Amino acid sequence: MKNTIGNSVTVTLFGESHGPCVGVVIDGLAPGIPVDRALIEKMLSRRRPAGGVSTARQEADAFTIESGVFDGYTTGTPVCIRIPNTDVRSGDYNRSLARPSHADYTARQKYHGFEDYRGGGHFSGRLTAALVAAGALVMPALKAKGIRIGTHICRCGGIQDRGFCDLEKDLDSLEQLGFAVLDSDAGEKMAQAILKAKAEGDSLGGVMETVITGLEAGLGEPWFDSAESVLSHMLFSVPAVKGVEFGAGFAIADMTGWSANDAFYMENGKVKTLTNRAGGINGGITNGMPVVFRCAVRPTPTISKEQNTVDMDKLENSVLAAKGRHDPCIAPRVAAVIDAVTALTVCDLLAQRHGTDWLAGK
Amino acid sequence: MKNTIGNSVTVTLFGESHGPCVGVVIDGLAPGIPVDRALIEKMLSRRRPAGGVSTARQEADAFTIESGVFDGYTTGTPVCIRIPNTDVRSGDYNRSLARPSHADYTARQKYHGFEDYRGGGHFSGRLTAALVAAGALVMPALKAKGIRIGTHICRCGGIQDRGFCDLEKDLDSLEQLGFAVLDSDAGEKMAQAILKAKAEGDSLGGVMETVITGLEAGLGEPWFDSAESVLSHMLFSVPAVKGVEFGAGFAIADMTGWSANDAFYMENGKVKTLTNRAGGINGGITNGMPVVFRCAVRPTPTISKEQNTVDMDKLENSVLAAKGRHDPCIAPRVAAVIDAVTALTVCDLLAQRHGTDWLAGK
Amino acid sequence: MKNTIGNSVTVTLFGESHGPCVGVVIDGLAPGIPVDRALIEKMLSRRRPAGGVSTARQEADAFTIESGVFDGYTTGTPVCIRIPNTDVRSGDYNRSLARPSHADYTARQKYHGFEDYRGGGHFSGRLTAALVAAGALVMPALKAKGIRIGTHICRCGGIQDRGFCDLEKDLDSLEQLGFAVLDSDAGEKMAQAILKAKAEGDSLGGVMETVITGLEAGLGEPWFDSAESVLSHMLFSVPAVKGVEFGAGFAIADMTGWSANDAFYMENGKVKTLTNRAGGINGGITNGMPVVFRCAVRPTPTISKEQNTVDMDKLENSVLAAKGRHDPCIAPRVAAVIDAVTALTVCDLLAQRHGTDWLAGK
Amino acid sequence: MKNTIGNSVTVTLFGESHGPCVGVVIDGLAPGIPVDRALIEKMLSRRRPAGGVSTARQEADAFTIESGVFDGYTTGTPVCIRIPNTDVRSGDYNRSLARPSHADYTARQKYHGFEDYRGGGHFSGRLTAALVAAGALVMPALKAKGIRIGTHICRCGGIQDRGFCDLEKDLDSLEQLGFAVLDSDAGEKMAQAILKAKAEGDSLGGVMETVITGLEAGLGEPWFDSAESVLSHMLFSVPAVKGVEFGAGFAIADMTGWSANDAFYMENGKVKTLTNRAGGINGGITNGMPVVFRCAVRPTPTISKEQNTVDMDKLENSVLAAKGRHDPCIAPRVAAVIDAVTALTVCDLLAQRHGTDWLAGK
Repeated sequence: MKNTIGNSVTVTLFGESHGPCVGVVIDGLAPGIPVDRALIEKMLSRRRPAGGVSTARQEADAFTIESGVFDGYTTGTPVCIRIPNTDVRSGDYNRSLARPSHADYTARQKYHGFEDYRGGGHFSGRLTAALVAAGALVMPALKAKGIRIGTHICRCGGIQDRGFCDLEKDLDSLEQLGFAVLDSDAGEKMAQAILKAKAEGDSLGGVMETVITGLEAGLGEPWFDSAESVLSHMLFSVPAVKGVEFGAGFAIADMTGWSANDAFYMENGKVKTLTNRAGGINGGITNGMPVVFRCAVRPTPTISKEQNTVDMDKLENSVLAAKGRHDPCIAPRVAAVIDAVTALTVCDLLAQRHGTDWLAGK
Repeated sequence: MKNTIGNSVTVTLFGESHGPCVGVVIDGLAPGIPVDRALIEKMLSRRRPAGGVSTARQEADAFTIESGVFDGYTTGTPVCIRIPNTDVRSGDYNRSLARPSHADYTARQKYHGFEDYRGGGHFSGRLTAALVAAGALVMPALKAKGIRIGTHICRCGGIQDRGFCDLEKDLDSLEQLGFAVLDSDAGEKMAQAILKAKAEGDSLGGVMETVITGLEAGLGEPWFDSAESVLSHMLFSVPAVKGVEFGAGFAIADMTGWSANDAFYMENGKVKTLTNRAGGINGGITNGMPVVFRCAVRPTPTISKEQNTVDMDKLENSVLAAKGRHDPCIAPRVAAVIDAVTALTVCDLLAQRHGTDWLAGK
Repeated sequence: MKNTIGNSVTVTLFGESHGPCVGVVIDGLAPGIPVDRALIEKMLSRRRPAGGVSTARQEADAFTIESGVFDGYTTGTPVCIRIPNTDVRSGDYNRSLARPSHADYTARQKYHGFEDYRGGGHFSGRLTAALVAAGALVMPALKAKGIRIGTHICRCGGIQDRGFCDLEKDLDSLEQLGFAVLDSDAGEKMAQAILKAKAEGDSLGGVMETVITGLEAGLGEPWFDSAESVLSHMLFSVPAVKGVEFGAGFAIADMTGWSANDAFYMENGKVKTLTNRAGGINGGITNGMPVVFRCAVRPTPTISKEQNTVDMDKLENSVLAAKGRHDPCIAPRVAAVIDAVTALTVCDLLAQRHGTDWLAGK
Repeated sequence: MKNTIGNSVTVTLFGESHGPCVGVVIDGLAPGIPVDRALIEKMLSRRRPAGGVSTARQEADAFTIESGVFDGYTTGTPVCIRIPNTDVRSGDYNRSLARPSHADYTARQKYHGFEDYRGGGHFSGRLTAALVAAGALVMPALKAKGIRIGTHICRCGGIQDRGFCDLEKDLDSLEQLGFAVLDSDAGEKMAQAILKAKAEGDSLGGVMETVITGLEAGLGEPWFDSAESVLSHMLFSVPAVKGVEFGAGFAIADMTGWSANDAFYMENGKVKTLTNRAGGINGGITNGMPVVFRCAVRPTPTISKEQNTVDMDKLENSVLAAKGRHDPCIAPRVAAVIDAVTALTVCDLLAQRHGTDWLAGK
């Protein structure tokens, strides 16, 4: 389905970095979800380039809701959100030199030279603004059901953030933060590492950690639509994500069953697990514990340091030192994106189980 | 879509561990793919419990092709493969005690007690036999296009296998092996570690590494059907997989852009990359280099050591020491499963790009 | 999606006329639907060739439920129903002569000669047995929700059946009948017309009329998944259907708005319409009135009268007088098929709106 | 999938009659299709209200292509077309009185009162402008493959147009016409009948007949995605369509097999049929003959004559005489819509068979 994802709640993405706009259509939403424009703006601002640690490209992200909302509520018909592109400088981009580890070469292989190459075209991280707006649109519906989502940078530039601790408090603070860390000292060091990389014409990556709380047991499917499958499908759609792991993730491969298993116990009449190494998912299905996963985010491939590459027109070796504007590290900006796509995936899982009206309380 | 996956080539899975059979329907295959029954048998035998390192349950896996094959070739209509269950001992299972980190509790939450609990029911690893048969069915078509797939246990019980080296030779040897390692000494040590865990009533996990060679550049989509998205969707459908990473994966998060980027260069008129930290995928689209990924496989949750858990009927704390037959480590068996589901995913990507007839050479 | 249909409740069909079996996988059904094997047998017998008016091929249709049912209830996991083929005589079929208006020629164009040509292969009406079994499986769930479905032959061989009148009584009687007519005299004349066509080596078609009662208002979508769209998609999948119309159908094209509109009125606090020329669907969405549609069924293309055709191997004109066994009119048998596929479509619409558990009352 | 349709080439529709715009996203198009803006404008003008026979609402339909087109060619990424709403007069609409046979009541049942009721909201025929633009976008690709599509009003107000005769000439003339008839005298009479209905505060319907020429044999699937199924799914998405029939359609139900069958014969080395009662489709698959189908279009439900209805707020009987602007007959405008959605469906069938690049000649 290429640019559409989801079963009951579907998301269709369109737009190019230097075209008139980026946009998204969300279909299958319950009628009656209150639309919180301020929240959309706030989540967009969390995604927007910050201070020195991000690209110099600045966009107001003055979105319009083109359809599907009436008198402040979703109507139940498709919601299209459009975000115009304003701060566009196409002169910065070269067409024939393939930026290493970027999509220039694969785009040409796939689209035979018809791709809009300006600023990464349809591959641009710019399109995540539309995803963030879509995710922010559904957040109030999830919140009303007691579901919360938060993402922090758990590692960047060799600096480790502290882990989640008091979930509700941690989620509260992440909602307020521009730079999504739980330990502000760690955040300060990360920012310095990013600025250092930038000064060297280089870039950094990071590991993002996400928690979903308040999710009921029973979501997901035993096989092809396991909760891990549908979440990872969405997460690997976020540019730069090269790894996804749930719960203890890759570390669990080195444990024994005895140490890896999460023992069940009763707490106030409810079944819980003492540990959560499975990340809230057993056999592909949520077990009612917080869902926890981590995404590996690669360092921005566009760097100003000189790199070897090929000229795609002349088919010969060449050298590239990217100019243009680019992020020395997208980890700070990607937190809002991961929150948003996670929210959309959770809506889809809930709507499949409970029907199309349930999210609005009906 | 629950138990169906794929766009052009779809796979539908059915069956329970202790029902009459497990089975699979593969739809969208090109007409004219030669069916190699011996290869299906061989791949099924690679998945079958081996010597001491696996469960004592032994099944001949005497599959029948129920439809879609005529005179030794696929017809282009749905292929159903059915594998009867024979060595079934339901008495071994207890219904009310939830095995920690297994699907007993989540199945009850999802299916309200109507689930077939015997032997894990629809959640049983037994269903992977059907997936393996389906994957083996399409392998000759991929091979004819120069595409090969191989998986080895790159880590198990703290022992590391060597990495891929001479890809063609390594793939040749993996095809012949019951225990999928590249370094037989490492394999010997892993087998000992597994037997030790078994003797202690415990279990082990592992990390599987897979390579796909001969894949053209241009497969996958920029966003929701990125090559990573569709592969991970399928891979997380394999029971016990808790992490998936491509290329350098989580390690790339700690590199800088300069060290993480794969420089392009020309070799015999072809564009290649000097390194392959992106795992053959840039911007969600294959770049013509080998696709490389790793899956974290959790230790088998069913162990005979005593564990704390809850009684789901009485809703009270309890203690469980699983009897039944189970694998002390599924890593050796899961290699064939990952090969199979990877083959099915690759067929789908190719059929989307080149149409439904292409796989058979038309 | 080729051989899979549905969004929340999906149906996957497989098998060939002269292969080992035909079968179907139904996925997405609620856990806890009681399975009524006798009803499945009864609906299969309604589809089975009757007395003189049908083909001489006789099959017991001894179906097995291969998965997804446990202790008499659906489990919520995929239900596979398998019906073995027994009374198979492949010698009757000729490969090179294309039967006019049959799928021989188009199958060869699509499958390049790899198709299983015996008895129509995958195109055979034989596969409708699997559809009927699938439909019968879900009928008890619909009945429990107050939803009933019935189909009668409203025209055949120039003879008109009376229209629906007292819906509940009419549906009662259709459930009991082998030959689905509301007026038994008309049925008698139709049977005679069919026998006459048979004696002449010819065949007849007919128009089927279906009613769904008890359906809530609000099912279907404004655009691409209008109730008419999803029903017609399924109905045109039934072999021989060449037209589908809802309510007044083609006749409404000749009315004026004033005469075509169904006036709303209140009855016992409920909104109803005085007439039902829209067939219970306004703007693609059910309005709570009975859903009514008609399907045009073409005369069986296989006739024993001599016909001009081509030899597909020699690519030259030829003459064909079909032997084999075939129905002189499939209208009597297709009633059960239309009931079944309608039931499956209704389940899908309900599950999308109310979620996956709703059909079983949860 | 609600507002998205298609497998390889998908169409997503959004917008409301009185919102800022209507729009469409077309995904899966081959890169390199030349975009003919003049053709899009021309097809939009064919859909636009004409002279006296249509609604007084006049819109310039000044569409913008928001994405997926670069330097005059499709890029292969999603194309979004946006058409702003300009001539909007919301005061004309009453919220509580359900217009008979319109979607007011069903929308309220489905969307619980959150629907945008102004001008029919998301149900408005206004959205077909976006469909027409999408269809016009792909027309050049089909034409380059020798595929043509044309629709005429074959019956309206009791007046019959002549049937298709010299297909190429007929298609040429239909492309030029505002009022899509093959016999201009018949067209004149139809226009008079429409004006008469309008003068009486009433409306007319009609039957549309469509032909697709140049289509290869082998498109469509044996069962759920039969060519009839996918076409009818799309056609019943067009507002006001209440019946769809292929070839001889409902009339074939009254023929015998002997008279209904289309005899094959050889012509210049090609297999053809002497007649085309099957409408170019055998066994769900195109046979290379022209595909022919007819759609029954109901008379516009909105009429100014007084009608009985209910007040949905007060739940009591009431009387309605619609004001607003509306078409006395949509048949003249719907021809362009049917051409457009047929073109989109054909693209999808071709892209599934031949892959995503084929449409642009690669």
